Amino acid sequence: MRAAVLVEPGRIEMEERPVPEPAPGDVLIRVASVGVCGSDAHYYREGRIGEFVVEAPLVLGHEASGTVVAVGEGVSAERVGQRVSIEPQRPDPGSAPTRRGDYNLCPHMQFYATPPVDGALCDYVTIGAHFAHPVPDTVSDDAAALCEPLSVGIAAVRKARVTAGSSVLISGAGPVGIVTVQVARAFGAVDIVVTDIDEHRREVARRFGATATLDPRSDDTSHLRVDAYIDASGSPAAVNSGIRAVRPGGTVVLVGSGAETMPIPVQVIQNRELVLTGVFRYANTWPTALSLLESGRVDLDSMVTAHFPLEKSVDALESDRVPGSIKAVVHLSPTVEAQRGTE
Amino acid sequence: MRAAVLVEPGRIEMEERPVPEPAPGDVLIRVASVGVCGSDAHYYREGRIGEFVVEAPLVLGHEASGTVVAVGEGVSAERVGQRVSIEPQRPDPGSAPTRRGDYNLCPHMQFYATPPVDGALCDYVTIGAHFAHPVPDTVSDDAAALCEPLSVGIAAVRKARVTAGSSVLISGAGPVGIVTVQVARAFGAVDIVVTDIDEHRREVARRFGATATLDPRSDDTSHLRVDAYIDASGSPAAVNSGIRAVRPGGTVVLVGSGAETMPIPVQVIQNRELVLTGVFRYANTWPTALSLLESGRVDLDSMVTAHFPLEKSVDALESDRVPGSIKAVVHLSPTVEAQRGTE
Amino acid sequence: MRAAVLVEPGRIEMEERPVPEPAPGDVLIRVASVGVCGSDAHYYREGRIGEFVVEAPLVLGHEASGTVVAVGEGVSAERVGQRVSIEPQRPDPGSAPTRRGDYNLCPHMQFYATPPVDGALCDYVTIGAHFAHPVPDTVSDDAAALCEPLSVGIAAVRKARVTAGSSVLISGAGPVGIVTVQVARAFGAVDIVVTDIDEHRREVARRFGATATLDPRSDDTSHLRVDAYIDASGSPAAVNSGIRAVRPGGTVVLVGSGAETMPIPVQVIQNRELVLTGVFRYANTWPTALSLLESGRVDLDSMVTAHFPLEKSVDALESDRVPGSIKAVVHLSPTVEAQRGTE
Amino acid sequence: MRAAVLVEPGRIEMEERPVPEPAPGDVLIRVASVGVCGSDAHYYREGRIGEFVVEAPLVLGHEASGTVVAVGEGVSAERVGQRVSIEPQRPDPGSAPTRRGDYNLCPHMQFYATPPVDGALCDYVTIGAHFAHPVPDTVSDDAAALCEPLSVGIAAVRKARVTAGSSVLISGAGPVGIVTVQVARAFGAVDIVVTDIDEHRREVARRFGATATLDPRSDDTSHLRVDAYIDASGSPAAVNSGIRAVRPGGTVVLVGSGAETMPIPVQVIQNRELVLTGVFRYANTWPTALSLLESGRVDLDSMVTAHFPLEKSVDALESDRVPGSIKAVVHLSPTVEAQRGTE
Repeated sequence: MRAAVLVEPGRIEMEERPVPEPAPGDVLIRVASVGVCGSDAHYYREGRIGEFVVEAPLVLGHEASGTVVAVGEGVSAERVGQRVSIEPQRPDPGSAPTRRGDYNLCPHMQFYATPPVDGALCDYVTIGAHFAHPVPDTVSDDAAALCEPLSVGIAAVRKARVTAGSSVLISGAGPVGIVTVQVARAFGAVDIVVTDIDEHRREVARRFGATATLDPRSDDTSHLRVDAYIDASGSPAAVNSGIRAVRPGGTVVLVGSGAETMPIPVQVIQNRELVLTGVFRYANTWPTALSLLESGRVDLDSMVTAHFPLEKSVDALESDRVPGSIKAVVHLSPTVEAQRGTE
Repeated sequence: MRAAVLVEPGRIEMEERPVPEPAPGDVLIRVASVGVCGSDAHYYREGRIGEFVVEAPLVLGHEASGTVVAVGEGVSAERVGQRVSIEPQRPDPGSAPTRRGDYNLCPHMQFYATPPVDGALCDYVTIGAHFAHPVPDTVSDDAAALCEPLSVGIAAVRKARVTAGSSVLISGAGPVGIVTVQVARAFGAVDIVVTDIDEHRREVARRFGATATLDPRSDDTSHLRVDAYIDASGSPAAVNSGIRAVRPGGTVVLVGSGAETMPIPVQVIQNRELVLTGVFRYANTWPTALSLLESGRVDLDSMVTAHFPLEKSVDALESDRVPGSIKAVVHLSPTVEAQRGTE
Repeated sequence: MRAAVLVEPGRIEMEERPVPEPAPGDVLIRVASVGVCGSDAHYYREGRIGEFVVEAPLVLGHEASGTVVAVGEGVSAERVGQRVSIEPQRPDPGSAPTRRGDYNLCPHMQFYATPPVDGALCDYVTIGAHFAHPVPDTVSDDAAALCEPLSVGIAAVRKARVTAGSSVLISGAGPVGIVTVQVARAFGAVDIVVTDIDEHRREVARRFGATATLDPRSDDTSHLRVDAYIDASGSPAAVNSGIRAVRPGGTVVLVGSGAETMPIPVQVIQNRELVLTGVFRYANTWPTALSLLESGRVDLDSMVTAHFPLEKSVDALESDRVPGSIKAVVHLSPTVEAQRGTE
Repeated sequence: MRAAVLVEPGRIEMEERPVPEPAPGDVLIRVASVGVCGSDAHYYREGRIGEFVVEAPLVLGHEASGTVVAVGEGVSAERVGQRVSIEPQRPDPGSAPTRRGDYNLCPHMQFYATPPVDGALCDYVTIGAHFAHPVPDTVSDDAAALCEPLSVGIAAVRKARVTAGSSVLISGAGPVGIVTVQVARAFGAVDIVVTDIDEHRREVARRFGATATLDPRSDDTSHLRVDAYIDASGSPAAVNSGIRAVRPGGTVVLVGSGAETMPIPVQVIQNRELVLTGVFRYANTWPTALSLLESGRVDLDSMVTAHFPLEKSVDALESDRVPGSIKAVVHLSPTVEAQRGTE
C-alpha cells in the first residue's frame, strides 16, 4: 500500500508498505478521507511537538474515515463493508483513567501520528473495532473524517458547561475555533462572540454561527461577562483578556496549545471562583459528533476548502498558509456510498 | 381594579378590589396577559389540588406579564414603565433551600394562585422586584406570560440532563409536553419521541419539534433506549412504560401530577442505575427562558390558540375542553410595546 | 482443583476440576478467602434470581481474595506472588457504558457466580489482570475478600451524595447495611440512623457506627428530614417510609433487591425534588475500598462471624439463618502474608 | 459600646459608639469571641487589600460569635438569648449569583471588616437573622467564632472534590492550612501531605491530621500524583510545584491570596485536564461547619494559642509574628453557656 511518510522535518516521501494485519479486536480499514490538522503541519515542519519528537519515519494524519475491509479475531465479520469514522486512539482498558471513563488521559495511550505511532496518510490502517464508528449514509467521507476535530470542539464545549441560553467567548477562528462555534450553537448557546485578528477568519466565524466577532487589537472585551470562555488560539494575550471576560462562577477552557507556562490572572479566578481547565483530545465524543452531523446541527463539509491526492500530501500540509484556507483534506479511496453520491 | 375571583368550586365572580400597594422591595405591575394552566382549571373545578384547598375567595392565574407602574421602597424608580415577565413566587431568602439556590423548595414559599395567595387574573399585582424580569421588545406580552410554563419545561429538561445529541421520550402532548419538546430541542436533543393517545396532539407535537410520535395504545416503546424520559401526562401506565424505555445510566423526570403513589418498576431503576426525579415549579429559569425566546429557539406565540377578556375568564378556564386548544390567554391591559406592535 | 458446585437447587457437591489457564490479559489466582453473600444463598436455595436461572452446574462465590500464581500473555510476570482482592467482573471494554466509566452497566458483562459464569468457591480462578487489585500487607485475606460487599456500600454512599456533615437513614442492618453504615461514616456522615426489626442487628449497627437505631414496627421516622436514605432491606414498607424521611433536594438509593415493582410515593419525590436511584454492583470502587481499609476507616474483619473450609460450603451458605451471624467466610489457601500473620 | 477602630494604618483606637439598632430581618448580637485573621492584620498594617482601601475609620474582625440580645422587625423574639456563630456577610437576595446559591459571589455583598463595612471588634453587631447560626451547647464561644475560617476550609475542600479515600496536597500550614487539613480528613481524605518551610508549622500540621509533611526547600513533590492540591500559601513557587503534583483529572484550588497574576503551567493543566479554581469566602458552609464541630470531627479550640481583651486588639493583630502562634482570639462578653462552662 502507499504511505506518505515524514522522513525528516520538511520532507515527506511516498513509500510502498505492506497492508497491516488486523490484530485480535481490531478492524482493517481502507482509508477514504484524511483531514490535515495543525499538529500534522507542526510535526512536518518542526519534527516535534513539545516532548513528542519524531525520531523515526512517521506517517502523519489522525482525522480519518474509510471502509472496513477485514476484521481481527473476535470481531464480527458483518462489519466488513461498513463505512466508519476513525477515533484514532488506543487506550489501555485497564488503566485507572480508562476505567473511570477518561480514556483520553490513559498513560499508555497509543495515538495516530504521535511518535512513534503511525497515522492515516496511507491506504490502510487498523484500529480497535469499537473505535471505528459506523457512519450514517447521509454523512460524507470528509465529514466522517472531520469527526475528529469536531470531537475536540465537543470536548471543549462540554467542559465549558455550555447549555441552552449560554453566552460564550471563543478566541481564535481557525478550524478548531470554527468547529467550536458550531458545537456551542448546537449545545444551545445564544451569544457566541469570536475574537481573531484576521478579518477573513472573523467573517468565516460569522458564517458558521458566531453572533458577534471582535478584533482583539481594537475591540475591548473587558465589559463582557460571558458564561464561558474557550481559547482556541494558544495566545497568552487572548487568554489573559478572555479570563477577565467571564462572569462570576463561569468557566474557562484552554484548547489552543503553545506556551508551557502562561501568566494567568489568578486573582480574577479566585474572586470570581472561575473554573479553568483544559482539553486533551477527547473521550466519548463520537456518538455525539455523529448525532450532530446526522441531524444537521453542524456542517463540516462546508469547512473543507481544498482536496489533495495522497501524493500531494505536502501541499495539503502547507495549505494552512494559503489565504482563505480553513481545512484541507487528502482523498484516498472513496467509500462506496460516497462514490454513489458523486455519480 | 377588576379581579376574577373563584368564590367556590365552579363559580368565578368579577369583583372590584383596591389596587395593591407595593411593599418594600416589590414592584406594582399592571397585568397584560395571563395564561391559563391546568392547575387553574383544576382549582376552578375541584376547589383543591392535593393538600392545597381553596377555603376563601381566590384569584387564579400564575402565568403573567405586564408593565411596572410603581415601585416599593428600595427599588429603583427607573423600573417604572418596564415590560416584565412575572416569576410568580416569593421564597423566604433565609431558608436553607433558598440559600442553596433551590428556592422553589423553600418551605415558606408564597406562590400566586396557590391558596391562600391570590394570583394574576386581575388588573394589578405585586411581586419582588427581582422576580419581575425585564422583557426584550421582540417578545410579545403572551410569550412573556408563557415564560412560566416554559420555565417548567426548562426545569424538567435540565433535570433530565438533556444535552447536544440526546434522545428524549416525552409522554403527554399537552401544553407542558409541547413546551418540553421545544426546550429539549433547544438543549440540543436530536431524537424527540412523544407519546399521546390523541392524534391531534401528536400532530401538534410534530409541528413543534417532535421527531417521532407514538400512540401508546398501539405503538410499543419497549425497544427504545433513550437518554431521558420526561412524563408530562401524570399517567401511571405512561410512567411505567417510559421508565422501561430508558438506557442504562439514563434519567427519568416526572413533571405530570396525579397519583400520590404509583407502582414503579424499581428493579429496572436498580439494574440500569436510572436516576428518577421530579419537578416542583422551577428556580433560576427566567434568564434561560428569555434567552431562548429572544433568540427564537422556542416559539410560545404559536401555542396560543384562544384569547379572552378578563370577564370571560370562565371560558378561558374551560377552554382545555375545546378540541384543538393548546393554550388560552386572558388579555388585560396590553403593554405599550405590544400596543405598538398591533398598530 | 476442588470446586464446590451447585448441581441443583439445594445441592452443592465437591468436584475435582482442572486448574484453569489464564487467558491473555488474565491472571490465575489461588483463592484464599471467599465471603458468602445473600445472593449465593438465594441461588443455592432457589436456583435463580429474577431472570438469572441456574441451568447448569455452577460454582458460587463472588467475594474473593487470593494470590496470583500465573499470568496470561501480556501480563507482567512480576505479578506472580502478589496478594490480591478480586473484582469479580469482566466488562466488555468497547461497550458504551464501559467507555463512559460505568462498566458495571456493560450489557456484555460476565460476572462471577451469575449463570452461566462460575464463581470463586474453588481452588483457582482467573480474572482480568486489572481486576485483581494488589492488597497492602496490613489487610487480611478476609478483608480483601470483603472488598466486594464494601464496594456495594461505596457505590451506594457515592450515589447518595453523602459528604462531611451529612445525615443518612439506612433501612436494613444486614451485611450490606452494616457496611453502608461504615462507609457513610468514612464519607463524613455525622448522623447515621439505622432501622431494622431485629434488636440484635440494631445493636450490631450501633457497634459499627450508627448514631441511632429504630425499630420500624414501633418507631416513627416521619419526622426525619435526612440528606440521604439508603435502603438495604428490599422491603416495600421500608422504602415507602424512608422516602418520606428525606429533606427537599435529598437522595434515595435502593440497594436492597426484592420486588420487580413497588408502590412509590411519587408526589413526595416531585414536591421535594428528591433524586431516586439504584445500585447495580459497582465500578471504580476498589481503590477507595482498599484506601479505607488500609487507613482503618472501615473494619471488615470484625464483621466475620464464622469460618468454614471449602468442604463445608453448605454450612457457610446456611449460616445466614444462624442467630447473630453477620458474615460467613470460606477459607481455602491462605496467602503467605496471612499465614505469616497467624504464626 | 466599645469598639476597636482602625483609624489609619498601624493605629487602632478604642472608641465609645452607640449600640446599633437591628434593622428589619436582623438580630443584634452581644459579641463573645472574635478570631483574628491574616486579612485583619493586613488591613491594620497596610490599610488596604488589593482594591479594598480603608478610607475611613474601620472596625476590623469578621470571625465572631455571641448572644442574640434583640431582634429586628419580622424576626421571632424567641431568638433572644440564643448563642450564635456569625456568618459575616449580607448578600443581596435578588442578585443572580445569590439566587443560584452562590451568594458569596453577589456583586452587592456587604462583608464585615471590608471597607467601608464595620466588623466585629466591638461589643455589639447586627447581622441578618439567618446569618446568625445557633450554636450547640457543646461548642465553645471560640470555636463558634472560628466557624468562619473553618468555612473557608470547607469551601476549599468541597471545590477540591475531596471524598473518602482521596489524597490531598496542601501548601502552607498557617491557620487556613491547618483548618483545611482537618476538613480534608473529615471529608474522608486518607493521604494528606502538607508543605511548609517552617518546621514548627509542619509539626502543627501533623498534630492536626497531616499524614506527611515536606519542606519545599529540600523535599521534592514532583513524584506525587494526588487527587487534589489546595494552596493555602499564596506562593507562586508553591502553586507551580503543587499543580505538577496532581494526577490526571485532578483538582487545584487556590485559597491563599497574593499576586494578581502568576505564571501557571497551563500545559500540565491541559495535558492532564486538571480543574483549577479558587475560593472567595464561602456559601452554605455553616451547617456543615457546626455539624463537624458538634460531632468532634474537627477541633478548633486547640488551634487557639492566645486570648486578648478588646483593649489589647493590637497585640492580637500582631500575634501572627509570635513564634508558635496559630490563632489569636479577642474575648468580649462570654455567652452564658461559656460562662457556665468555666465555673
